[in-house]
Amino acid sequence: MRSFRIVVAGHGDLAAAFASAAQMICGSIPMLAAVGLQPEDSPESFMERLAAAAPDAGEPLLILTDLVGGTPHNVSLALARRRPSAVVISGVNLAVLMEAAMSGDSLDSELVARLVSTGREAMTDGASLVASRTT
Amino acid sequence: MRSFRIVVAGHGDLAAAFASAAQMICGSIPMLAAVGLQPEDSPESFMERLAAAAPDAGEPLLILTDLVGGTPHNVSLALARRRPSAVVISGVNLAVLMEAAMSGDSLDSELVARLVSTGREAMTDGASLVASRTT
Repeated sequence: MRSFRIVVAGHGDLAAAFASAAQMICGSIPMLAAVGLQPEDSPESFMERLAAAAPDAGEPLLILTDLVGGTPHNVSLALARRRPSAVVISGVNLAVLMEAAMSGDSLDSELVARLVSTGREAMTDGASLVASRTT
Repeated sequence: MRSFRIVVAGHGDLAAAFASAAQMICGSIPMLAAVGLQPEDSPESFMERLAAAAPDAGEPLLILTDLVGGTPHNVSLALARRRPSAVVISGVNLAVLMEAAMSGDSLDSELVARLVSTGREAMTDGASLVASRTT
């Protein structure tokens, strides 16, 4: 059983679509929430919903954001500054989310490094994949 | 004006949500389509819709897929094998899509390498970002 909560934070419906796509592949994923920035949102209203998605401030929390510099990411960083048990990883892709969702490890710096590494390695061009499989 | 078409291919509503999120940030993006694998889809029906999203087989085409090994990615690779002008990059995140959407360059190996690099660099943990800004 995973020991930390995951919240995906993104623009529009992207966060919710990440959660749905991961669950389409893996089945139901517990302790996973999605918070989407809608056009009518302010940073404050987004912060309220983000905090509500992880109501226990003492619980380890991984926030996966869509884009450095965007409001979902900036607000997530602001939340993490208030919560020492929260970690933010930007640039979420489906591989990072699935690796995190399936993880049985504690949310420590080793896991965070592995998640970033997994997500980066999953981002590659088809030609490189073919080349790496044939060498 | 970008010289190539972009198709995002993913599970469920993820591809469409990527396109919407990018357009929420950048405004309308021409020559961009999204194709989502729905539960009722077969690889064949997904291929039909993917090919229909880029009807001109001779036009340069960048397909951004959500996950290596998933049906959207496998079918995209199959399409790219039939189309020498198509390139597939897996593990899409919002940074890759936006960089590609804003690109004025030709879809060559240099651009593909830059897109992968941009996407990977955009995937990082908050602590690293803080550290890199203060060093």
